[in-house]
Amino acid sequence: MGNTFGHLFRVTTWGESHGGVIGVVVDGCPPGILLTETDIQPELDRRRPGQSSIVTTRKESDTVKIVSGIFQGKTLGTPICMLVKNEDARPEAYSEIAEKFRPSHADYTYFAKYGLRNWQGGGRSSARETIGRVAAGAIAKKILKTRYNVQILAYVKQVHKIKAKVDINKINNEIIESNPVRCPDAEAAKRMIKLIERIRSEGDSVGGIIECIALGVPAGWGDPVFDKLDADLSKAMLSIPAVKGFDIGSGFDCITMKGSQHNDPFRMKNGKVVTSTNYSGGIQGGISNGQPIYFRVAFKPVATIMQEQQTVNINFQNTTLKARGRHDACVLPRAVPIVEAMTALVLVDHSLRHKAQCEDLQAPL
Amino acid sequence: MGNTFGHLFRVTTWGESHGGVIGVVVDGCPPGILLTETDIQPELDRRRPGQSSIVTTRKESDTVKIVSGIFQGKTLGTPICMLVKNEDARPEAYSEIAEKFRPSHADYTYFAKYGLRNWQGGGRSSARETIGRVAAGAIAKKILKTRYNVQILAYVKQVHKIKAKVDINKINNEIIESNPVRCPDAEAAKRMIKLIERIRSEGDSVGGIIECIALGVPAGWGDPVFDKLDADLSKAMLSIPAVKGFDIGSGFDCITMKGSQHNDPFRMKNGKVVTSTNYSGGIQGGISNGQPIYFRVAFKPVATIMQEQQTVNINFQNTTLKARGRHDACVLPRAVPIVEAMTALVLVDHSLRHKAQCEDLQAPL
Amino acid sequence: MGNTFGHLFRVTTWGESHGGVIGVVVDGCPPGILLTETDIQPELDRRRPGQSSIVTTRKESDTVKIVSGIFQGKTLGTPICMLVKNEDARPEAYSEIAEKFRPSHADYTYFAKYGLRNWQGGGRSSARETIGRVAAGAIAKKILKTRYNVQILAYVKQVHKIKAKVDINKINNEIIESNPVRCPDAEAAKRMIKLIERIRSEGDSVGGIIECIALGVPAGWGDPVFDKLDADLSKAMLSIPAVKGFDIGSGFDCITMKGSQHNDPFRMKNGKVVTSTNYSGGIQGGISNGQPIYFRVAFKPVATIMQEQQTVNINFQNTTLKARGRHDACVLPRAVPIVEAMTALVLVDHSLRHKAQCEDLQAPL
Amino acid sequence: MGNTFGHLFRVTTWGESHGGVIGVVVDGCPPGILLTETDIQPELDRRRPGQSSIVTTRKESDTVKIVSGIFQGKTLGTPICMLVKNEDARPEAYSEIAEKFRPSHADYTYFAKYGLRNWQGGGRSSARETIGRVAAGAIAKKILKTRYNVQILAYVKQVHKIKAKVDINKINNEIIESNPVRCPDAEAAKRMIKLIERIRSEGDSVGGIIECIALGVPAGWGDPVFDKLDADLSKAMLSIPAVKGFDIGSGFDCITMKGSQHNDPFRMKNGKVVTSTNYSGGIQGGISNGQPIYFRVAFKPVATIMQEQQTVNINFQNTTLKARGRHDACVLPRAVPIVEAMTALVLVDHSLRHKAQCEDLQAPL
Repeated sequence: MGNTFGHLFRVTTWGESHGGVIGVVVDGCPPGILLTETDIQPELDRRRPGQSSIVTTRKESDTVKIVSGIFQGKTLGTPICMLVKNEDARPEAYSEIAEKFRPSHADYTYFAKYGLRNWQGGGRSSARETIGRVAAGAIAKKILKTRYNVQILAYVKQVHKIKAKVDINKINNEIIESNPVRCPDAEAAKRMIKLIERIRSEGDSVGGIIECIALGVPAGWGDPVFDKLDADLSKAMLSIPAVKGFDIGSGFDCITMKGSQHNDPFRMKNGKVVTSTNYSGGIQGGISNGQPIYFRVAFKPVATIMQEQQTVNINFQNTTLKARGRHDACVLPRAVPIVEAMTALVLVDHSLRHKAQCEDLQAPL
Repeated sequence: MGNTFGHLFRVTTWGESHGGVIGVVVDGCPPGILLTETDIQPELDRRRPGQSSIVTTRKESDTVKIVSGIFQGKTLGTPICMLVKNEDARPEAYSEIAEKFRPSHADYTYFAKYGLRNWQGGGRSSARETIGRVAAGAIAKKILKTRYNVQILAYVKQVHKIKAKVDINKINNEIIESNPVRCPDAEAAKRMIKLIERIRSEGDSVGGIIECIALGVPAGWGDPVFDKLDADLSKAMLSIPAVKGFDIGSGFDCITMKGSQHNDPFRMKNGKVVTSTNYSGGIQGGISNGQPIYFRVAFKPVATIMQEQQTVNINFQNTTLKARGRHDACVLPRAVPIVEAMTALVLVDHSLRHKAQCEDLQAPL
Repeated sequence: MGNTFGHLFRVTTWGESHGGVIGVVVDGCPPGILLTETDIQPELDRRRPGQSSIVTTRKESDTVKIVSGIFQGKTLGTPICMLVKNEDARPEAYSEIAEKFRPSHADYTYFAKYGLRNWQGGGRSSARETIGRVAAGAIAKKILKTRYNVQILAYVKQVHKIKAKVDINKINNEIIESNPVRCPDAEAAKRMIKLIERIRSEGDSVGGIIECIALGVPAGWGDPVFDKLDADLSKAMLSIPAVKGFDIGSGFDCITMKGSQHNDPFRMKNGKVVTSTNYSGGIQGGISNGQPIYFRVAFKPVATIMQEQQTVNINFQNTTLKARGRHDACVLPRAVPIVEAMTALVLVDHSLRHKAQCEDLQAPL
Repeated sequence: MGNTFGHLFRVTTWGESHGGVIGVVVDGCPPGILLTETDIQPELDRRRPGQSSIVTTRKESDTVKIVSGIFQGKTLGTPICMLVKNEDARPEAYSEIAEKFRPSHADYTYFAKYGLRNWQGGGRSSARETIGRVAAGAIAKKILKTRYNVQILAYVKQVHKIKAKVDINKINNEIIESNPVRCPDAEAAKRMIKLIERIRSEGDSVGGIIECIALGVPAGWGDPVFDKLDADLSKAMLSIPAVKGFDIGSGFDCITMKGSQHNDPFRMKNGKVVTSTNYSGGIQGGISNGQPIYFRVAFKPVATIMQEQQTVNINFQNTTLKARGRHDACVLPRAVPIVEAMTALVLVDHSLRHKAQCEDLQAPL
C-alpha cells in the first residue's frame, strides 16, 4: 500500500528502478483539458539524470508516453496512464548490494518489512519512482495555471553551508533555470556548483534546503482539522526521498518570536483582504488566506557515497561496503521539479475538494 | 471533509468549541481489548484547561464518556464513540470577534472557505477539537503498549529561547510530568515557567519546540512512497493547531553534514541489527528500522494576545481588536499529550497495515 | 471498519441497540444550508418503532439532536453530529440470547469475527443502527431537492405473494404515506396489512420488495468502471439489514428479453435527449442518463420469529430457541425511509463528485 | 474517479479499448508470493475474444506482461503493474458511432458527463477494461487458494429461457470449462450454444444468469454495517458491464417464504457450527458464516445488435443506426472469469481487513 496520493486527483505510481518500465496513473483529472506529452516532458527533463555537469552521469532520456485518458489531444476524464522506459540499467553495478544493506538507504527496512527486496538500484525505493510524480505534477501544474493562474516555484535555497539570497518577489522560472543548481542567487549558485564538484571528487555528498512558493492560490483551499493544506504539503514533502524536515511561513524561526511580533495583521488593500506580514506562510487554520504560500524542505546528504562504510550483510554479519556506480553528490538540483510536482498535486486536489463542497455558497438553500 | 484520520484505525472528530458537546468515533479498533474511561481520562487531564498555574484558567473538567463499542469492559470491534461536554463557555466573551477576524487565527479563512463561521471561541478551529484526538490516541497508546511494548514520550524541548538539555535515554513519564511545563530538564523548566508567567502578564505569547520519541517500534512499519511513516507523522503534526514545522532525526541539521558523517552504519549487536548513530531518526525509506524514532515539532506563539492589534472586520473595513477572555500564553505544556496522541494514531494505523499485508511471510505461497 | 459510507459526503454511524445513545456524523456537507432537527425528525418518525399497528410495539421516540456543524440555523461545512437516545431497552428480554445464536441473525458471525459480541438486542447488528442512516439521508434529501429538484420515492411493491399495482408516474409522498404499509396501491395495502397481522399472530414473519424511484437526476452523475452509480446503489441496498437482492431497470427480467427489445432508443423530445423505453433504469455505463432511476430491493422475512427453532449455544451444543420480545413481523414499512435515505446518500455523493471533476467543461483549458 | 477497487488489495485499471495498451496496477499484494505471467494468462484466455465459435471473432491474444512488483519470481509487496496490448483495433468500424449515440451503451452518458468521449469501440466503457480486473483477480484467486484453500467457481446458469440444472456440490473447473458456454449442465449447454448461434445469425443478442459459488471461506470475513461482504459483492457485480441485478442465497425467492421456512438452523457437525439450510448464502449480518457463499448475477442482452435502431446524433437530431463490427451475441461465456475475478477481489480484500483488525483475539490485552 501507500502508492496512491490524493483524494480527488488520485495519483498512483509503480515500477522499480531496474524493472523495464516505470509509470503512473492519474485518476480524477477533469475532462476537456488540452494535454500532450509536450506538457509533461519538460518537467521530466528537469528531473532526469545527465542533464548537467553536477548531476549523475547515468543516461536516461526519460521519454514519457501517454497511453490512456487522452483523445484528440484532450483529457477524457478517464485515467491517464503515462509510461517511461528504464534504459541505462547496469545490474552488475549492484551485485555487492545484493548481499549487503547500504547505510541510510531503504535496503534493510524493505527487507525487514517484506522479507525480500529488489536490490537492483534500490528497486522501489529508488528516486526513479519520482518520475511518475513529476509527470502527474505536470498535469496538476497545467490545471492550476490555466484555471486559477496559480504558479509554483521551487528553488535551491541552501547547499551545505552556502545560503542563497532570494527576493521572493523577483523570482521566476527563467531565473531558477538559469544555472544547473537551480538557485536564483547567481553568485551563490556558482559557489554551490564548485562545492558539489569538490564533494563529488571526494566521493562524499551534501544536502541542503529547497524553498517553494505558490503564488495566486485563492483564499479558501484546504480542509480543517486533519487534512489541513499545510499538513498535506508536509506529508507530500516528507514523502520525497531524502527529506528530513519541513516548515512553513516563519517555520522553526517562529520559536523565538512573540505573538505580538508573529501575528499577521489583516489590512484592506485595493478592496482585498491582505496581511501586512506573512509569517503564516499563506495558510491559517489549515486553509489558504490568499497570501503567497511558502515553505522549506530539508534534504539530507545523499546516502550513496564512494567511501568505505561499515554495514551488515544479509547473513547478519558485520562487513564493509564501498559504493560503485554513478550517483548524485547533491540531489537538490534534480529535486526542485519534484518539490514543485508534489506541491501541485496537493493544491490541485484541494482545489477540487473545495469545488465539490463549497462552491455556490449563495445557492438558495 | 478532512475530519477523519487513519486508514485502518480511523478516527473522526466533530464538534465546535461552544457547541454543547465534542466527540470522536474510532472505527477499526481491534476487538477484545480491555477499555474503560479510566484509560482515557488521564490523557485528557493532561490536555485540559486549568490544570496548572501556567495554562488558561478556563474550567473544563473534560470528562469523557464512552457511549459505544464497549461491552462488559472490552472493545467489540465496532465503532467506539466518546463524548465530552463543553462546560465553561462564555459566548459573551466573543461578541467582538463576531464582527472582526482575529489575526493569525482561522476566522478569516473559514469565512473565505465556507461563507460563514461559528465565531464562538473559534468554533471548529478551536483547539478543543483536539480532545477527540487525545481520547482516540489513548486507545492507540494502550494497544501499542500492550501488543508491542511501544512507548511514546513527548516533552517540551524549548520555549522561546530557553532550551532544555535532555538525555533521551533517561526520560520517562514521571520525569516529564514532574513539572507543569512538561520539560524533563527541571532547571530549564523553572525558567520556562517564569518566562511564561512574565509573557502572560505582558499580554503576549510564546512558542517553542516539542520533541517526541517512540521506543520499541519494530523494524518494518510504514509504507513506501507516499504513506511513508515519517510522511504520515509529519502530516499528523502539522495538523495540530499552531504547528509551523516538523523535522525528524537529524532534521534541518542534516543540511550542514556530509554523507560520510550523516549515514548511520549498520552493526550487529546482541544478534540484532542496530545502527551506530541514528541521524535517520529510526525511519529509512519511510519504514521503521527498529531504532528509536524521534522528531521535533515547532509551535508558534499563541495567536490570541491581550494587546491591541490591527485587523479587518466582516464588512471589510480596517479596524483594531484586543482580545479578551482566558487564554494560554504558551500552548506547549498542553500540546504534549496531543503530540503523543497523534504519534500513537500514526503508529497503530501502520501496525495494522503491516499486519494486513506483511504478516506470515513464511507462508508457503 | 466498514462504518463509513460515501467519498465526499461521508457518513459514519456508531452505537449499539442497547448502548444508551446511537449516532451519526456527516462530514463534507456543503456550508450555508438551512438545517434544523425539524428537517430530520420526520424521516426518523417514518422509521421508528410503534408508529402503527403493524410494526413492533417497542416505544422509542427516536428524538434526534444535532450537536455540531450548525450555527444560527445553517450548516457550517464542518461535521454534523446527530444523536438519538435509546429509551425502551429491556435487556432482560435478551438473557437467553446471551447463550444462544439466533438463526439467520448476525449473532454467530459477529462472534466468529470478533471473539465476542454485544448480545443485547443484536448490538451493532441491530437495525437501530439505521437511525443514523435515515438522519444523514434526510440532509442528503434536502440538498438534492433544493439544489437539483431531485425527488426520491420508495414504497412497498410486494409483501409475500401480494403484489401492488403501481403507476410510477402517479405516485407521490402523500399516496405512499396514506397507509401504514407504505404501498401506493390502496387495495393491495389492505391485503398486506391483513397478511402481516395474521403472520404476526402466527409468530412468523414475511418479506417482500421495496421499489425506489429517483426523479430529476440530471444526466452525468456516476463514475465509470468501479464506482458506477448502479454499483453504488446496489452496495447501499445490500448494506441494509435483511436485504437479499437488488436489480435495476429491467433487472432480472432482462434475461428473457432480446437486445432488440431491451435497448432503449434515444429520441429528441422538447429539445432534450430522452429514451422511448427505460429498461436501463436511468443509468447507462454506470452514469445517469436523465431518465427516471428505478430499482427493486428484496427483503427477507424477519429472522426473529416467535416459534421454537433449532440452533447452537455458545458452548457449541445443539439446542433450541424461541424468541421473546417485541418485533416486526414484516420489516418493509419501516424500511421504506431507509431505502430512500441510502439512495439519497449515494446520489448526493455522486453529485459532489461530478461537481468536483466535471464542472466548467467549457473552461478555456 | 472510480477506477480503483478495494481497500487493502487495491486494484486500479486504466486504458481505452483502442488506446494501444490497457493495464492494471495492484497495490497491497502481500510479499513473497510466487507469481509469473503463467498465473495470469489462463484467466485472460478465458475472457479473450475469439476463444470459441460462440464469441466475437475479434482477434486479440491479450498477452499479459508483468512490468513491476515481481523480483526473482516473487511478489515484492510493491505495486504490481500488468500491461496488455490492444491488437485488433479497426477504428474505421466506428466512424458512424463518432456521430451517433448507440442505444443502451454508455456513449451518451459519457458525453453528458465529460463533454467529450472516445468513440472508438466505446473507449473506457468498453468491456476491454475488464482485462485488468481478470488479471488482478488471478492474483487474488491464487492468494485465496494458497492461503485459505478458498475456491471460486462461476458458471452460466441460464441463457434467455434455457435454465441449467446444477448441483453445486458436484461442479468443478473442468466441468465448467468442458463446453464453450461454461455451463455445467452439458445438455443445457448444447441448447444454449444453438440459441446463441441462432440469435447471432438474426443480428440480435441475449442475456442470462451467471451463478457464482465460493467454497472454503472461513467464518468471520466481512465488515458490518456499510462494507458488508454481500454489499461489496453486490457492488462488484453491478460494476461489471451489462449487469442489471444481483441476489444472494435465497435472493429474490426469499420474498415468498416465511421466516419459519427461511431461517437457517444452526447445528453442530463434526465439531463445527454449520447450518442445515443455506438460504443466507453463506453470509449473515454481512459476515461470512463458513457455509458456501453463492449468488446470481443478471446480464442483459448485449446492447450491440446488427439491426437498425432509432437513436440521436451528436447534433441532437433523431436518426437511425445499424451496428457493424464483430460482437458477442451473448456475453455470458466470457463474463464467467470476470465474475470470478471480482469475487476474488472482494474476498481477498476482506481477508486482509479481517487479518488487520481481528487476528490475535487471544492476545492478552
